[in-house]
Amino acid sequence: MTQSPSPDILARLADTLDTRRPERGGDPQTSYTAKLLSRGPDAFLKKIGEEATELVMAAKDGVPERIVAETADLWFHCLVALTHFGLRPEDVLAELARREGLSGLEEKASRPKD
Amino acid sequence: MTQSPSPDILARLADTLDTRRPERGGDPQTSYTAKLLSRGPDAFLKKIGEEATELVMAAKDGVPERIVAETADLWFHCLVALTHFGLRPEDVLAELARREGLSGLEEKASRPKD
Amino acid sequence: MTQSPSPDILARLADTLDTRRPERGGDPQTSYTAKLLSRGPDAFLKKIGEEATELVMAAKDGVPERIVAETADLWFHCLVALTHFGLRPEDVLAELARREGLSGLEEKASRPKD
Amino acid sequence: MTQSPSPDILARLADTLDTRRPERGGDPQTSYTAKLLSRGPDAFLKKIGEEATELVMAAKDGVPERIVAETADLWFHCLVALTHFGLRPEDVLAELARREGLSGLEEKASRPKD
Repeated sequence: MTQSPSPDILARLADTLDTRRPERGGDPQTSYTAKLLSRGPDAFLKKIGEEATELVMAAKDGVPERIVAETADLWFHCLVALTHFGLRPEDVLAELARREGLSGLEEKASRPKD
Repeated sequence: MTQSPSPDILARLADTLDTRRPERGGDPQTSYTAKLLSRGPDAFLKKIGEEATELVMAAKDGVPERIVAETADLWFHCLVALTHFGLRPEDVLAELARREGLSGLEEKASRPKD
Repeated sequence: MTQSPSPDILARLADTLDTRRPERGGDPQTSYTAKLLSRGPDAFLKKIGEEATELVMAAKDGVPERIVAETADLWFHCLVALTHFGLRPEDVLAELARREGLSGLEEKASRPKD
Repeated sequence: MTQSPSPDILARLADTLDTRRPERGGDPQTSYTAKLLSRGPDAFLKKIGEEATELVMAAKDGVPERIVAETADLWFHCLVALTHFGLRPEDVLAELARREGLSGLEEKASRPKD
């Protein structure tokens, strides 16, 4: 089902989200993202918990289209959170690349966390 | 804090994760991802819920490095889930691009869900 | 801040929720619970993920009233889920008591899960 | 599957958990709860997100025993969080009873939150 998206869709999306910040004039009346950002962190962090749960349910049902759509929802709200904190998707990709570079792709993930 | 990661890190990471699938010979003894994939969906879906919670906590603390690291953890486990279902990060990026193309970046997100 | 609630509030609440089931005539137009139950599991399971996230955020903020209110929200939606599956809060309390009886209160919790 | 647990199991469990607090001499070496409490909020809050996800998965699978066990796990970790903040399960039950008393059981839950 893969089309060929421009690989910089995440960066482009982040650029747009950045314009939705209250201090840049984002309008909560017309933009969903501006509304989330104007309400402060709890509003979009709650969505991250909610979308993660929806992804889990879609995966339990095993419906590919819903898995893709819910992952997109989850990543979208992660991008909103990054925007709020002045961070970029490139930071996340760089972190993933760093882990890959250091010690194989699974370095950090395989590090015991408990 | 942005470096300039190759924009196709997600695709490259997905390629590697694909080799960790049990049917492709992924070894649960040596690979964290192979272990997750061999255990079946509940193992990595549980991690999605856990990492989403950790991202929320990092964001509440407002520590940029942890926000980036937890988002990377969350996206990594989403990639593991996509791998299990034969899906690709490009599918997710295409979905985000589709929403952008159709009706502005916030089309789907702004659609009422309740 | 503790008042002295009747200890069987959970059972009483479950009795009421049971009357909200579609097959018992619960009306989605007038009852929030009937609406959740009529929509099927994803509707109330999504709320469990959402309310868990809200509890985590309230705890990070350390505001007692919100911690209590969000825990009540979370347990309420757990009761809705139990109702859907024909289960009772007494089943959950019995499971907690069983663990206590078997090997101390922390038996199950301390069992390694990975 | 209901046995008849003493209805005050939650209070009794909270009493025990209280003795696991570091300032009351709880020993992280011998007690799972003392370990969680000694690590601070992120340790047990992460478990709330994790157990909520496990409950959602058990419910998607529709296995009654697992639904009960995962709800017990979730409520247990809620009790740990309450303990940390000097709160009691009675506070949560009182909140549920208050909502029942004020305007029917579904008052707060039905209040629009967005």
